[in-house]
Amino acid sequence: MSTRRSPAYRRVTVLGAGSWGTAFAKVLGDAGAEVMIWARRPEVADAIRTKHANPEYLPGVVLPDRVGATTDAPTAFAGADLLVFAVPSQTLRDNLTGWARAGLIGRDTTLVSLMKGIELGTGRRMSEVIVEVTGVEPDRVAVVTGPNLAPEIAVGHPTACVVACDDEERAAAVQSTIFTPYFRPYTNDDVLGCELGGAVKNVIALACGMAVGMGLGDNTKAALITRGLAETARLGVRLGADPLTFAGLAGLGDLVGTCMSPLSRNRTFGEHLGRGESLEQARIATRQTVEGVNSCLAIRDLARGHGVEMPITEQVELVCHEGLAPSVAVAALMTREPKPE
Amino acid sequence: MSTRRSPAYRRVTVLGAGSWGTAFAKVLGDAGAEVMIWARRPEVADAIRTKHANPEYLPGVVLPDRVGATTDAPTAFAGADLLVFAVPSQTLRDNLTGWARAGLIGRDTTLVSLMKGIELGTGRRMSEVIVEVTGVEPDRVAVVTGPNLAPEIAVGHPTACVVACDDEERAAAVQSTIFTPYFRPYTNDDVLGCELGGAVKNVIALACGMAVGMGLGDNTKAALITRGLAETARLGVRLGADPLTFAGLAGLGDLVGTCMSPLSRNRTFGEHLGRGESLEQARIATRQTVEGVNSCLAIRDLARGHGVEMPITEQVELVCHEGLAPSVAVAALMTREPKPE
Repeated sequence: MSTRRSPAYRRVTVLGAGSWGTAFAKVLGDAGAEVMIWARRPEVADAIRTKHANPEYLPGVVLPDRVGATTDAPTAFAGADLLVFAVPSQTLRDNLTGWARAGLIGRDTTLVSLMKGIELGTGRRMSEVIVEVTGVEPDRVAVVTGPNLAPEIAVGHPTACVVACDDEERAAAVQSTIFTPYFRPYTNDDVLGCELGGAVKNVIALACGMAVGMGLGDNTKAALITRGLAETARLGVRLGADPLTFAGLAGLGDLVGTCMSPLSRNRTFGEHLGRGESLEQARIATRQTVEGVNSCLAIRDLARGHGVEMPITEQVELVCHEGLAPSVAVAALMTREPKPE
Repeated sequence: MSTRRSPAYRRVTVLGAGSWGTAFAKVLGDAGAEVMIWARRPEVADAIRTKHANPEYLPGVVLPDRVGATTDAPTAFAGADLLVFAVPSQTLRDNLTGWARAGLIGRDTTLVSLMKGIELGTGRRMSEVIVEVTGVEPDRVAVVTGPNLAPEIAVGHPTACVVACDDEERAAAVQSTIFTPYFRPYTNDDVLGCELGGAVKNVIALACGMAVGMGLGDNTKAALITRGLAETARLGVRLGADPLTFAGLAGLGDLVGTCMSPLSRNRTFGEHLGRGESLEQARIATRQTVEGVNSCLAIRDLARGHGVEMPITEQVELVCHEGLAPSVAVAALMTREPKPE
């Protein structure tokens, strides 16, 4: 059976040239679309344009000829019928505000978010920020999420993902635009649940990383993943998500992929904490602050505000921001009163 | 907070001295019960009795003083108010028939199954075999399952498990008998779902192992785990299980623990197949036939008989028993028609 289809969207712009934005551009190109990447830094755009490569973020990967790049936003947006946002979560609002003011976002364009974070201060999901800043109808915004470690997709290891959108036909159109033999998209109409799964998994990945850093094993990780998914689903259902979303690729799949993989930045950060380093030492060692460190605050507040119990998130927050020792956090999770599952 | 409680059962017999039976005996002893292990081989019983150790199955682990061992079944059963079965799945019926005929199973004893398999030929779950052979009421049989790799539990790495029983009070009594600071049991009333989760996960672990053997990454594993859990839940729900069971420790938890861990026998067996070895070569290399190789046949037939689609199980069966190349199986899974999740 052939899997090559005509993509529903022909001209796609990817905003952001990090590892996931670049790998997603490769998927789009392999599926048959013409792709333009907007990069913030000229040297990144140059490498993509002249060498079909992004050595800083995806070393060793060759991009299809039909993937171009520019640092000029008007050039990047021109003619696009699909816009894919892949900038850091906390910079989305600023970037988007500039592009919207410049009138770069077409009337009929579909907007896709690849970002997995909760905006600090507002508690907004990324699709909500897009709707708020651009004023587009929510059903024009889709979310692509799932177990999608960029370096693996870039070398063609098979995986699956979810395309979530209020508008079923739009989800199917995005699906057909990214379908390749190594990237298998499923549609879903639960945007809230899919985005929440992606944001909370970073917090649970921090907890898994702490367990790894403490030298604990796969049972412990599996229990953290399972109970972590349970608390994600509790919050999601309270906010109006479909509980089944959390059993799917955007919940379980993304959580498992992240918690299993040494490539995960959140898990790696947690490992540093688990070995007894402070937040500051972990930041220095990994040269970044990972999403989960910010999100655990926002998610904890959201949970408390809705009366939802999220014991793992609470403990991660205590370790990250109150100096609690990870070993004390794990002990606290294990010795709560026994009860029904 | 103290976690030491008085166990509801005081005298427990564990039937089977493999790694899981022995680790579970340690949990029972650490929780305060008097434990007697029945071992088939005298040298294993001797080592437990005289050295508090089972070096062949759990090297380096010291068992509590209150764990004894014998090869004499009447001695092992005498005075037990809880019987724990931990023999190989396909030997349960024969063993149990002998013990039941000898009148060793007390009238009021609670029976616990630790086994994760489906009986070849009959398609029965382990608790069903116990009920059929002993004639006890189903609500006297409990199942303990979850992400429970024995070597990790034996060294005290924290984990959680599920105690499933039709009789809620009995589940709570077993729960309080095995509660320790490193082993956290939750109760559940869905015996069917819990047992099915444990059996099917071995088949999915074979698929994950094949992916590992082929050099694929964590995305692929995460997608297989997610879609594998989805097909497990489809079958379970059709048979009458609670869908939520599969999102819990007996479904997701056990599946993730097994698929992540290089300690898993089913995953390791799958790795051999993924590297291009035949079933026979994999058997020779691992010196055993793992549960999933037998179970994939029984589960495939069960699914077909109930009109349930289980594409991963189908492909695993083709690889194990029809000589299909794992790469062809993975390609077949990835190129099915795109559809909603």
